[in-house]
Amino acid sequence: MTPETAHPHISIINGPNLNLTGLREPSIYGTTGFAQYLRDLGAAYPRVTLSYFQSNVEGEIINELHRVGFSASGVILNAGGYTHTSVAIADAVAAITSPVVEVHISNVFAREEFRRTSLLSPVVRGTIGGFGLDSYRLALEALLHISRIKG
Amino acid sequence: MTPETAHPHISIINGPNLNLTGLREPSIYGTTGFAQYLRDLGAAYPRVTLSYFQSNVEGEIINELHRVGFSASGVILNAGGYTHTSVAIADAVAAITSPVVEVHISNVFAREEFRRTSLLSPVVRGTIGGFGLDSYRLALEALLHISRIKG
Amino acid sequence: MTPETAHPHISIINGPNLNLTGLREPSIYGTTGFAQYLRDLGAAYPRVTLSYFQSNVEGEIINELHRVGFSASGVILNAGGYTHTSVAIADAVAAITSPVVEVHISNVFAREEFRRTSLLSPVVRGTIGGFGLDSYRLALEALLHISRIKG
Amino acid sequence: MTPETAHPHISIINGPNLNLTGLREPSIYGTTGFAQYLRDLGAAYPRVTLSYFQSNVEGEIINELHRVGFSASGVILNAGGYTHTSVAIADAVAAITSPVVEVHISNVFAREEFRRTSLLSPVVRGTIGGFGLDSYRLALEALLHISRIKG
Amino acid sequence: MTPETAHPHISIINGPNLNLTGLREPSIYGTTGFAQYLRDLGAAYPRVTLSYFQSNVEGEIINELHRVGFSASGVILNAGGYTHTSVAIADAVAAITSPVVEVHISNVFAREEFRRTSLLSPVVRGTIGGFGLDSYRLALEALLHISRIKG
Amino acid sequence: MTPETAHPHISIINGPNLNLTGLREPSIYGTTGFAQYLRDLGAAYPRVTLSYFQSNVEGEIINELHRVGFSASGVILNAGGYTHTSVAIADAVAAITSPVVEVHISNVFAREEFRRTSLLSPVVRGTIGGFGLDSYRLALEALLHISRIKG
Amino acid sequence: MTPETAHPHISIINGPNLNLTGLREPSIYGTTGFAQYLRDLGAAYPRVTLSYFQSNVEGEIINELHRVGFSASGVILNAGGYTHTSVAIADAVAAITSPVVEVHISNVFAREEFRRTSLLSPVVRGTIGGFGLDSYRLALEALLHISRIKG
Amino acid sequence: MTPETAHPHISIINGPNLNLTGLREPSIYGTTGFAQYLRDLGAAYPRVTLSYFQSNVEGEIINELHRVGFSASGVILNAGGYTHTSVAIADAVAAITSPVVEVHISNVFAREEFRRTSLLSPVVRGTIGGFGLDSYRLALEALLHISRIKG
Amino acid sequence: MTPETAHPHISIINGPNLNLTGLREPSIYGTTGFAQYLRDLGAAYPRVTLSYFQSNVEGEIINELHRVGFSASGVILNAGGYTHTSVAIADAVAAITSPVVEVHISNVFAREEFRRTSLLSPVVRGTIGGFGLDSYRLALEALLHISRIKG
Amino acid sequence: MTPETAHPHISIINGPNLNLTGLREPSIYGTTGFAQYLRDLGAAYPRVTLSYFQSNVEGEIINELHRVGFSASGVILNAGGYTHTSVAIADAVAAITSPVVEVHISNVFAREEFRRTSLLSPVVRGTIGGFGLDSYRLALEALLHISRIKG
Amino acid sequence: MTPETAHPHISIINGPNLNLTGLREPSIYGTTGFAQYLRDLGAAYPRVTLSYFQSNVEGEIINELHRVGFSASGVILNAGGYTHTSVAIADAVAAITSPVVEVHISNVFAREEFRRTSLLSPVVRGTIGGFGLDSYRLALEALLHISRIKG
Amino acid sequence: MTPETAHPHISIINGPNLNLTGLREPSIYGTTGFAQYLRDLGAAYPRVTLSYFQSNVEGEIINELHRVGFSASGVILNAGGYTHTSVAIADAVAAITSPVVEVHISNVFAREEFRRTSLLSPVVRGTIGGFGLDSYRLALEALLHISRIKG
Repeated sequence: MTPETAHPHISIINGPNLNLTGLREPSIYGTTGFAQYLRDLGAAYPRVTLSYFQSNVEGEIINELHRVGFSASGVILNAGGYTHTSVAIADAVAAITSPVVEVHISNVFAREEFRRTSLLSPVVRGTIGGFGLDSYRLALEALLHISRIKG
Repeated sequence: MTPETAHPHISIINGPNLNLTGLREPSIYGTTGFAQYLRDLGAAYPRVTLSYFQSNVEGEIINELHRVGFSASGVILNAGGYTHTSVAIADAVAAITSPVVEVHISNVFAREEFRRTSLLSPVVRGTIGGFGLDSYRLALEALLHISRIKG
Repeated sequence: MTPETAHPHISIINGPNLNLTGLREPSIYGTTGFAQYLRDLGAAYPRVTLSYFQSNVEGEIINELHRVGFSASGVILNAGGYTHTSVAIADAVAAITSPVVEVHISNVFAREEFRRTSLLSPVVRGTIGGFGLDSYRLALEALLHISRIKG
Repeated sequence: MTPETAHPHISIINGPNLNLTGLREPSIYGTTGFAQYLRDLGAAYPRVTLSYFQSNVEGEIINELHRVGFSASGVILNAGGYTHTSVAIADAVAAITSPVVEVHISNVFAREEFRRTSLLSPVVRGTIGGFGLDSYRLALEALLHISRIKG
Repeated sequence: MTPETAHPHISIINGPNLNLTGLREPSIYGTTGFAQYLRDLGAAYPRVTLSYFQSNVEGEIINELHRVGFSASGVILNAGGYTHTSVAIADAVAAITSPVVEVHISNVFAREEFRRTSLLSPVVRGTIGGFGLDSYRLALEALLHISRIKG
Repeated sequence: MTPETAHPHISIINGPNLNLTGLREPSIYGTTGFAQYLRDLGAAYPRVTLSYFQSNVEGEIINELHRVGFSASGVILNAGGYTHTSVAIADAVAAITSPVVEVHISNVFAREEFRRTSLLSPVVRGTIGGFGLDSYRLALEALLHISRIKG
Repeated sequence: MTPETAHPHISIINGPNLNLTGLREPSIYGTTGFAQYLRDLGAAYPRVTLSYFQSNVEGEIINELHRVGFSASGVILNAGGYTHTSVAIADAVAAITSPVVEVHISNVFAREEFRRTSLLSPVVRGTIGGFGLDSYRLALEALLHISRIKG
Repeated sequence: MTPETAHPHISIINGPNLNLTGLREPSIYGTTGFAQYLRDLGAAYPRVTLSYFQSNVEGEIINELHRVGFSASGVILNAGGYTHTSVAIADAVAAITSPVVEVHISNVFAREEFRRTSLLSPVVRGTIGGFGLDSYRLALEALLHISRIKG
Repeated sequence: MTPETAHPHISIINGPNLNLTGLREPSIYGTTGFAQYLRDLGAAYPRVTLSYFQSNVEGEIINELHRVGFSASGVILNAGGYTHTSVAIADAVAAITSPVVEVHISNVFAREEFRRTSLLSPVVRGTIGGFGLDSYRLALEALLHISRIKG
Repeated sequence: MTPETAHPHISIINGPNLNLTGLREPSIYGTTGFAQYLRDLGAAYPRVTLSYFQSNVEGEIINELHRVGFSASGVILNAGGYTHTSVAIADAVAAITSPVVEVHISNVFAREEFRRTSLLSPVVRGTIGGFGLDSYRLALEALLHISRIKG
Repeated sequence: MTPETAHPHISIINGPNLNLTGLREPSIYGTTGFAQYLRDLGAAYPRVTLSYFQSNVEGEIINELHRVGFSASGVILNAGGYTHTSVAIADAVAAITSPVVEVHISNVFAREEFRRTSLLSPVVRGTIGGFGLDSYRLALEALLHISRIKG
Repeated sequence: MTPETAHPHISIINGPNLNLTGLREPSIYGTTGFAQYLRDLGAAYPRVTLSYFQSNVEGEIINELHRVGFSASGVILNAGGYTHTSVAIADAVAAITSPVVEVHISNVFAREEFRRTSLLSPVVRGTIGGFGLDSYRLALEALLHISRIKG
């Protein structure tokens, strides 16, 4: 159902505190560091060009969305805490042309009330959350499927 | 990254109006009927046993969750309009032991306000929405990953 | 202003507790049973084919909307208590092609607060309420007018 | 079912901006002017005495309700934008003795959020909306039925 | 405690539907007409010049407040239904220099929810309600006391 | 204080997921199956005719309320998750003539926010919750007391 | 209009912090102590028996309402801060038979938001506020008028 | 099902205005005084030591909860109007070790909106309301059942 | 950037209490009367035909919008207190074809909470507020720019 | 930075249930009794005169605030559950002249929602919470600093 | 009315995503790039010194406000998406001494609900929005007028 | 009670606009610059190693929390305007291991409504606010006490 074609470029953008993944609250976020996960993911999808960006600064996430968002085949965005508060990132997602998938490591809907509203969800292509780091692979699968349909 | 193992049983449960998929509001739900999609999905994942159930009756969805939810490797649940109103289905999801993934064909967060709250999200393993019928394949991938970790 | 033409098929669908009409809370719902009313209504509009369906089960109302909603000239829907809670019935109304008129026997706006919000109103053609059983005749008049314009 | 009897007097009262009907936002309100519609309606119901009043001034609508509301067989009231904001008109409706039917040309429930609350609905006999100008004929039918029951 | 002094001018302004007092909903508003009440009140306070104005039109109430509000010793204002909705009348009360007392015939706090908020209360000198027509006499007493303190 | 008299008929109606009692979330609902509990309850009250009905379908609960609700001495209703969402069941309770007692196994007020509002409470005779399965016995005691007063 | 008759007993009950009147926040509450005011009021109404009670304890205010509320001609109640929070005092007012007038020294509606809701207002005869200590005299006038009507 | 064992001590604590039971609003609270009811209840449960406390003062209810709440077999608490406003009583219930049952004479859920929220419910063992004075007997039954399980 | 061309007709419409400008609350609205300001504005823009209308009556503002709104080059509307409450004026703005600019003398967002919502803003071309009477000149500049683009 | 000067008098006032400190819910409130803590605190600040008052009665806390609040150098107030509900205590704090510091043993913001709003915070000098019993010492430090600045 | 005087320095500060103006969603924001617009604006106002700053980073906008805000004649601030979420930028605007005008290219009030609340509006001098890029020229005109009054 | 021990490292982190302390709104924030205050604080606590960081950029505050938050003895955090809006900073506080104390110079609860909610409060150890710059010393005292207990 999903044979690999061409060399799509997928950009992964992680927001605040995700640099601590593997260290921070392991009962919620697990113990695997993101660098190791990225290496495994790249190995499993050798024909995909993966780029990675992480920042704790809201505006730098916007800068990166502007930089990749008119050329990448797709963007995987985990905006962390900004998910629930940032009109500015949502505006950036709406402004660019690459399809964006919102991911979450944890099931944000099963946590605090304020995590149940995402300002990004109305402007992304789709949302995936609750599967640990596997949420990123599923987002990659989703974007490859979208690019095959369009390609 | 996802070699197939064993013979997992995955149950797909569709709620109200999803029997009209392919007929109903094609700009939102597409033109592929669900029966055709299921055949393609089964062909792509030959080692997975897929069962399918659809009902417009809230209580029959609960009955089916009770029937499969203590033995299946996973449940893919698209509760349609009941997603936003049914405490009873949420209680059924919490009562069973199989992992449940909530799926949506459309990006429910980009539609009417009342579709932005899911009573199911807090009790499922994870949520996937906005990818058209491909949301089901992604949910299947997610459940296979979960069962490999556990198995 | 409204000469009868052709043989339109109008489907009347009644929701929960309306099977008790004539027995239940007569100060609100009156003392005429629905069966008697239907006979009188049929006699007054001999060229209209009237079908009638009542169920206390939300999903069966959806089933009936699917069954008649792609061929009937119009549907008169009194969803009773589901009016205020059922996204699923509203989705069914939006999915079908026959024009639907929402009716209420009592003036629901003059009763409890929770009866003041109808999830169906945004997706129906129009709403008629507060006229006792005569609400159904007015809905029939409305649908005949719509079908004359279209026919 | 509705043979005409006696010479009932029905008063139609239109609120703000309804003097522009036929000119204003035709996709919502249609292209028929109200004067033409009134002539047709009078011709179709020759035994009914129809009076007509329109004002953009909230207080003049109240004056008219006071003037006709203790003698007319019924009042058809489309208070336009005042529907959603006027406690004073609602008080006038409650103060008079003629039965009042609230009408709307468009389906106000399918438009902006603030149009979903009517301050008039709790004090009128019934509500009819969404049928274009035919809403007025249906209201007339409803009031004739009420006066036959009482008469 | 309250010997009469000088010849204060007190303006009574009544809002919508108060012209029906004595006719309208007698269980709430009593059966005494306002004209009779005014005559009795004038007789009881012979040294006070009472002026009276009633209108159903919000803007005419504002006009009257402008007309008397820079010279009268006090204004007794029963804005009826506009009490709960009119920012414009509240602005007029704030703009004038005569002290204004808000009165209500009924105890508005014991009625519908929307009657529990007065937009006028924050800008008037004081509020008196629930004493039937005697509320006007009490307001007159209050204004005489205020003018004695100032005089 | 409560000598047994006559042969009252008490109907117990259980809603969604209560068929899993004894299996489901035992820390909340305990480990005793409902069948065993019913046998014990019947043995303790030999002169009472107990009937039992369970369904996961909202409309079937309404059907059962209609069936028993005009003749039973009392109804014990645990509507499970429908407690918090079902206007239709509340309407059925209001429509029947037998006294209805609402019961809950757990203290629903100490759980999730959405469980703190019961649509049924305003229309039942009384409410009992938080005592495990003993809540049913207490409801039975309450209904026997009511029938002795009336009988 | 208000000739004195008989010897009515009027009870004045003051709530928390009103013992500081004359000392506390003089820009809001003035500089006259309550004891002096009471003497002046008694002198002005020699045929009225005035009783006075002040407590900072919510329950003692209830005790006093119980004590005087079945025999006094009327009660003037300034419950201070409890006005906005005490269901229990409101229940006491509803339970007794003497007419109760709610008074406030300041215009509570022009102060903080939480002072705009009075739990007492729905159960008292009427409300008077914003006239400084003169509010008490006006309340006395109101109660004398009520007792003359009844007497 | 409930043979009496040992000599449990059950404390009944009544809150504000319940000293008027039998006098106050008999359509809601009935005409039996509480003293008579207590005598009957004691006679029906001779092996139970019943203590009784009533106060209109919130803090004295807390004092009593502290006094009995570490030794009594159970506490039956009807906090009257404080039920809906007292965080402090709820904290006292949470602080003590005896099981507490919340009771109400009337069905508080069928009355004013503000009576629908109980601050006590989340911290008590269970809640019983709507059965008149029989609510107390049912609470006693509930506590005896709890103490038999523990004993 | 803004050379004057042709002879545009700009209509200025002022709502309630703006006839008091220069007299009323000078700390908020300044001390210049509107008549003087209009003369200065006309002198500064000699090629623009300025018309002026002020009324305290909501419906007369609607009448004026209807009168000028299909021919003027632009409308400058300061609806005063009706800004925050008038669905009817908003409907009139939406119904006419001339571009409308909403102006405010004061910065309404820095005042009371209820002044922060404008019902007009969603239907006007743009909004200008907070610049004292200069807000009108800025609105005139804005409309001249719009008419140059269109012209 | 904080050399001791003069002999300031600091009043500590504890509200409901704080008499149980050391006994009640030790995971939240710790195991040290307040009497022991006070002795230690007094020993550490020998030049400070500490007075202590505890009551479960809201009005007695007000009485104590009145008693000490015009002469003490400062007041340390832990109003317990009344923190979240008492307008009357807040009024007392505003009425007195001594600076008041609000303290909490636990971090009330990390507990139930209703504990997140303090009615006292807007009227106290400052707030300290979350440090166990050490919150009192910090409040004492804060008040000493304030009195040194003033002194 | 607005002769140019002196050499005022006006700072224009643009927030997130405004670097994409001319590229992004042209139906909302137009097709003119901001650089070209600035050149034209500078040419039309040769005696004004215009400075320009754009950043996607909230904190850098604050830095720039600090840098220019104590010396510039005025600041034109379009904070983009931060308009609706940034207390920190609003604090910076309140902290500086130059007058600030808030501008928006689109009519933000006619778009999504969350764009209807501006945290900046209460602290700026005035607001201008909905006129495309011409909003900036109008803001410049407004600031020149302010500096002429002050200068 | 608080003898100094060891050499704890305390990190002070200040958020947006706090670099202006001493310049900005002195009636709220005082006239002492932060640099001077830090020198005095360091001198008063010579055995404590104080580090200081200030940024207007939300993400840089997160970076600093990550840098110091796994080794410092404690963190004193005044997040300024981000206190009320930043989920991302709250997540950083929850992710690190050093105890964090939230401080505010002013009593934020006595200011605008939006300042009354802190997203940080639920995840910090405790909160101190309203004492001017002395709030920082109190926080230092609190952290020293915590480290003594742990050390």
